[in-house]
Amino acid sequence: MVIVAPFNFPLEIPFLQMMGALFMGNHVTLKCASTTSAVMEEIVRMLLECGMPPGDLNLIHCGGKVMNELMKQGADHIRTTQFTGSTGVAKDLAILLEGKIRVEDAGFDWKVLGSDVHDKEFVASTCDQDAYAHTGQKCSAQSILFAHKNWVDAGLLDDIRDIAAKRNHADLSIGPVLSVKTDEFLEHTAKCAAIPGAKLLFGGKELEGHSIPKCYGAVVPTAVHVPLSQIPAHFDLVTTELFAPFQIVTTWDTEEDLQTVLGLLERMHAHLTAAIVSRDMQFVNRVIGHTVNGTTYAGIRARTTGAPQNHWFGPAGDPRGAGIGSPEAIRLVWSCHREIIRDDGPVEPTWTPPEPF
Amino acid sequence: MVIVAPFNFPLEIPFLQMMGALFMGNHVTLKCASTTSAVMEEIVRMLLECGMPPGDLNLIHCGGKVMNELMKQGADHIRTTQFTGSTGVAKDLAILLEGKIRVEDAGFDWKVLGSDVHDKEFVASTCDQDAYAHTGQKCSAQSILFAHKNWVDAGLLDDIRDIAAKRNHADLSIGPVLSVKTDEFLEHTAKCAAIPGAKLLFGGKELEGHSIPKCYGAVVPTAVHVPLSQIPAHFDLVTTELFAPFQIVTTWDTEEDLQTVLGLLERMHAHLTAAIVSRDMQFVNRVIGHTVNGTTYAGIRARTTGAPQNHWFGPAGDPRGAGIGSPEAIRLVWSCHREIIRDDGPVEPTWTPPEPF
Amino acid sequence: MVIVAPFNFPLEIPFLQMMGALFMGNHVTLKCASTTSAVMEEIVRMLLECGMPPGDLNLIHCGGKVMNELMKQGADHIRTTQFTGSTGVAKDLAILLEGKIRVEDAGFDWKVLGSDVHDKEFVASTCDQDAYAHTGQKCSAQSILFAHKNWVDAGLLDDIRDIAAKRNHADLSIGPVLSVKTDEFLEHTAKCAAIPGAKLLFGGKELEGHSIPKCYGAVVPTAVHVPLSQIPAHFDLVTTELFAPFQIVTTWDTEEDLQTVLGLLERMHAHLTAAIVSRDMQFVNRVIGHTVNGTTYAGIRARTTGAPQNHWFGPAGDPRGAGIGSPEAIRLVWSCHREIIRDDGPVEPTWTPPEPF
Amino acid sequence: MVIVAPFNFPLEIPFLQMMGALFMGNHVTLKCASTTSAVMEEIVRMLLECGMPPGDLNLIHCGGKVMNELMKQGADHIRTTQFTGSTGVAKDLAILLEGKIRVEDAGFDWKVLGSDVHDKEFVASTCDQDAYAHTGQKCSAQSILFAHKNWVDAGLLDDIRDIAAKRNHADLSIGPVLSVKTDEFLEHTAKCAAIPGAKLLFGGKELEGHSIPKCYGAVVPTAVHVPLSQIPAHFDLVTTELFAPFQIVTTWDTEEDLQTVLGLLERMHAHLTAAIVSRDMQFVNRVIGHTVNGTTYAGIRARTTGAPQNHWFGPAGDPRGAGIGSPEAIRLVWSCHREIIRDDGPVEPTWTPPEPF
Repeated sequence: MVIVAPFNFPLEIPFLQMMGALFMGNHVTLKCASTTSAVMEEIVRMLLECGMPPGDLNLIHCGGKVMNELMKQGADHIRTTQFTGSTGVAKDLAILLEGKIRVEDAGFDWKVLGSDVHDKEFVASTCDQDAYAHTGQKCSAQSILFAHKNWVDAGLLDDIRDIAAKRNHADLSIGPVLSVKTDEFLEHTAKCAAIPGAKLLFGGKELEGHSIPKCYGAVVPTAVHVPLSQIPAHFDLVTTELFAPFQIVTTWDTEEDLQTVLGLLERMHAHLTAAIVSRDMQFVNRVIGHTVNGTTYAGIRARTTGAPQNHWFGPAGDPRGAGIGSPEAIRLVWSCHREIIRDDGPVEPTWTPPEPF
Repeated sequence: MVIVAPFNFPLEIPFLQMMGALFMGNHVTLKCASTTSAVMEEIVRMLLECGMPPGDLNLIHCGGKVMNELMKQGADHIRTTQFTGSTGVAKDLAILLEGKIRVEDAGFDWKVLGSDVHDKEFVASTCDQDAYAHTGQKCSAQSILFAHKNWVDAGLLDDIRDIAAKRNHADLSIGPVLSVKTDEFLEHTAKCAAIPGAKLLFGGKELEGHSIPKCYGAVVPTAVHVPLSQIPAHFDLVTTELFAPFQIVTTWDTEEDLQTVLGLLERMHAHLTAAIVSRDMQFVNRVIGHTVNGTTYAGIRARTTGAPQNHWFGPAGDPRGAGIGSPEAIRLVWSCHREIIRDDGPVEPTWTPPEPF
Repeated sequence: MVIVAPFNFPLEIPFLQMMGALFMGNHVTLKCASTTSAVMEEIVRMLLECGMPPGDLNLIHCGGKVMNELMKQGADHIRTTQFTGSTGVAKDLAILLEGKIRVEDAGFDWKVLGSDVHDKEFVASTCDQDAYAHTGQKCSAQSILFAHKNWVDAGLLDDIRDIAAKRNHADLSIGPVLSVKTDEFLEHTAKCAAIPGAKLLFGGKELEGHSIPKCYGAVVPTAVHVPLSQIPAHFDLVTTELFAPFQIVTTWDTEEDLQTVLGLLERMHAHLTAAIVSRDMQFVNRVIGHTVNGTTYAGIRARTTGAPQNHWFGPAGDPRGAGIGSPEAIRLVWSCHREIIRDDGPVEPTWTPPEPF
Repeated sequence: MVIVAPFNFPLEIPFLQMMGALFMGNHVTLKCASTTSAVMEEIVRMLLECGMPPGDLNLIHCGGKVMNELMKQGADHIRTTQFTGSTGVAKDLAILLEGKIRVEDAGFDWKVLGSDVHDKEFVASTCDQDAYAHTGQKCSAQSILFAHKNWVDAGLLDDIRDIAAKRNHADLSIGPVLSVKTDEFLEHTAKCAAIPGAKLLFGGKELEGHSIPKCYGAVVPTAVHVPLSQIPAHFDLVTTELFAPFQIVTTWDTEEDLQTVLGLLERMHAHLTAAIVSRDMQFVNRVIGHTVNGTTYAGIRARTTGAPQNHWFGPAGDPRGAGIGSPEAIRLVWSCHREIIRDDGPVEPTWTPPEPF
């Protein structure tokens, strides 16, 4: 069994996956992102100190190419692999391993705000955390916000801007972006803002006074408003996931708008997480019923991301879809269905052998 | 969604799979084995007559190559595929579809008889049906029998021979073998019987007085006894699945023998079905605990095959493993986990916005 | 086992109870209300015709006194009794049978309408049915309606009056009242309307042009509005269940009013059914969380009574509480918990006998 | 809510019951046996020290008469009572409380040994503990042993005698009997041994060299063998529970004997606990299927009593039956069924008001 884990939660993700695998009785080979694998090495040392049998786990420090070659050579002996990372690598591994893989890959996660405005301060705070906490580097980060006009009229977008403005490098509420450089970030922002009718809401600048190396991105929390009517025509651009503190915002109002929103949600391809913010159970159920995201938060307190508190987190609708942390995920990935039929009742006294058939 | 189904249960297998897929709300493309796909065509006509929306199902008559090309061209639009058939094709499709597949492939199914002899007539009858019903062409057919010496001493093997001897072509209790020709069958029988200490128990001959075309096999029910001690050295030969009325029989006695048997069961690679025949719950639990077959029958009435009454039927321990017929299988193949978190309680009166992080 | 069943659903209630008892393997003695027991006699004849073993069921036609004497004499042989009827008889039987009884007794059932007005026509129709269908003779009938001011302003009470006005004896949408006579009904109505600030909303008259015998009641659908502030002081009068087409209506508006309403709901003693009408999940959950009624309908379509579609129907919070119709009720009344511990694993090789203790 | 608890497990029983009641949100009044209630007083002091709200629990030190009078006066305010103790008091309380009670009363607990002899040393040790641990003062103690002849031939009864002989007052493996005096014990033993064909197997004497006060019993572990054929004629004597270190032993052999045994098990009236010792799953299932004891241990390691490890422990087949310790028992006694129907979907667009009915 193999686990391949990403950089962004260097302890939580591989540790939950590894412990789930071990609890279910597997022999595990673990490869973490090379940028952060020192973290797991310390944990493994601690586990050994606590009495973990050394033969239960292999920890490998290496880059993707070396791991790929190792898995190629050992493919016959790998019964399953859990992969968390980009969609492209997931696809290559699925072919290499003849489908014996479970993946948790990209997420372009949406939040829809219903027409009933309640607890605005709380919702603004949640939007800020969903989009910008961990410098936007969660697979479950809020990538697009569909706000009903009532929320915009009530000043929600200003509130989000004000909270984001408090983020700074000094207290680490904003930090380095590991997989998107500053100029790539600014270029994507500019493209989105150039869509007809679109405008930069806030951000769109390099972080000031930082000491982050050039190989990483250093940017301030950014939001671009794109009119709902323009999104269908610029769908690929608008729904490109930037693993960074960036979100698209749009506004809806009428029943017709809502149908456009539901159509866009259906058209997205990475159904990882989502949030539906409302107290109206009919509205919430309608959006749930028309979408398929794996982890979907519903209710006035809904967020797109519970990490690191952790729930399921896996794409829905993909046979390779895994999940992390939950009992359901552990069973799905690290165990399998086995059907045992106890046929131990007495043979009926009137039984006679059937004719051969 | 695609279903690719085999010849041996031309109605049951594709029908159960297709109905499960439709019930879960999928749009299905179905390809049956070209030798028997007329059966499903009639069923589909009936379903249309009963009101099935014509757009819900595509039925394709074609051979494997054409289907392969179709799936290659449409791979991006296929969200999952259920395949029932040979291991080789399963592997090719898994690569083609980047793992978006669920398979039910080969089975080399075993039965172990414990030391407590009860209901001998019933068990003999069950052994006959498991090995030879449907002319041995069930994926869940009994391929190898590990009989405790007490059963052999009690005459079980003679009983099985006597029941098998009643099978004949006239009443269709023995019929054509679709994927193994007569000479291939006899050649495999001879090889097994040539293992040191092995002997033909019964059968090993062409069927007499039949009108089966040469392109199909026509043979009588056959069993070869191989000493337990010789199986490890001839493992690949002994565990080759013959999709035909053929079984290997062996005898065990001591605790040491039992450990050899458990080692052999672990070494087999296609963990489809199995049976453990005993009333002793400790013996039954011990064998269950040391094996992983997907569908495992336990108890004095245990069989290797419930088809066509149908249970799960899917390999265990393979992330691509599917199953047919059971609610668990339908959900696993045709639906997916979706986690919905209702976060609709009131915001606590004492809540204040957290610092950005 | 004994079943004692009421007049108002002469087929449904005893039949569901009796079949549940028989399915669970009990030997049943059934006594229906003497006014309507001819109905069950026909059913029992049909069951016998269908093959029911005659020894499984005793059907007794008699009045309450005779049944009481029978149960007294046979109390040692009665393992449980299911009683549906009045609170007084339930109490007497509980003592007679030393607690070996399950009861479904009176209900003074409430409905609360939240501040969000939706689907007014539907809700008015549901209120009419809850209060007046079956001429108000359901244990789950709506006895009191707590309507938010927004609903009253929107004209809900007028709508309910207009629908009730269509009820008439000719099409049997209003019929005889079996346990309350006309003058008793009118007297209770007058008393309620005499509470300070209260007024008759509609009804309060004898039915015109009917041929119902004097021993039964014959009245039109009736509603009396009582100010919320007056209910605590007239609690016993306002919460007296009239098994007839009668309801109390009141109006609430503020948070303080809502707390008064919740206090009244807690103070009622027969927690049978209830309804909470709103789409706001926080409001619905708050009322659910502060109440204990056994069957509680929640949502914009909520009603107080699903009979005869049937759900649980049993009081909550009483150890003798039963229920009718649902699997949970059948198990609770007609079966019992049994804990079987399988302790069949092997004795550990290192086991030694413990010291006696 | 009230709990009335016995002397024999002065901490475990009331503590489990009280904590279950508190966890489920009840306000509890607790009365322990007056001989041992000092134990709970200390625990309650500890709970208060740990922060338990003082208003959640009333602890009363008094005898049964005072408690009875208290409950009589407060009967209207007691929603349920959990009683553990004798059958007679249970019956009186059930009448007083109009059935609002859950009881765990007497147990005359049986063990049946099947024909397959395994792990004799282990089974002998378990028999000793079941009958004599805690000086036989468990409601779940082994009161009668139905041993298959094969076990007797193998020397099981001698083994049980030898283990019992090691019990002594010095190490407290035998202690005072609180509710049966020495002469009452010896008199009952003599009566049983006087049944035709019966004989004293071991014991039947006063304990030597003890300092136990006269008001308590002081006896050695005792067993009387009564022929199976004599039990039906002396049923009441043989099945009288002695809350002391005493057991009846009998032997069975044939199918006819087994039917006699099953008839006797059915005839007993206090179905508390039981054990079926065998590895043969058909035998075990047959005995389970013909009996109704609440807690039934099955398998070669089966015992009649898991106390103080604790399982369910409540009579089966009595609507007042409670249980202690298990989640099922806590829910049954301290909570109730509540059915909430969410009817919050949209009203169908084609809906029109029904005719009044």
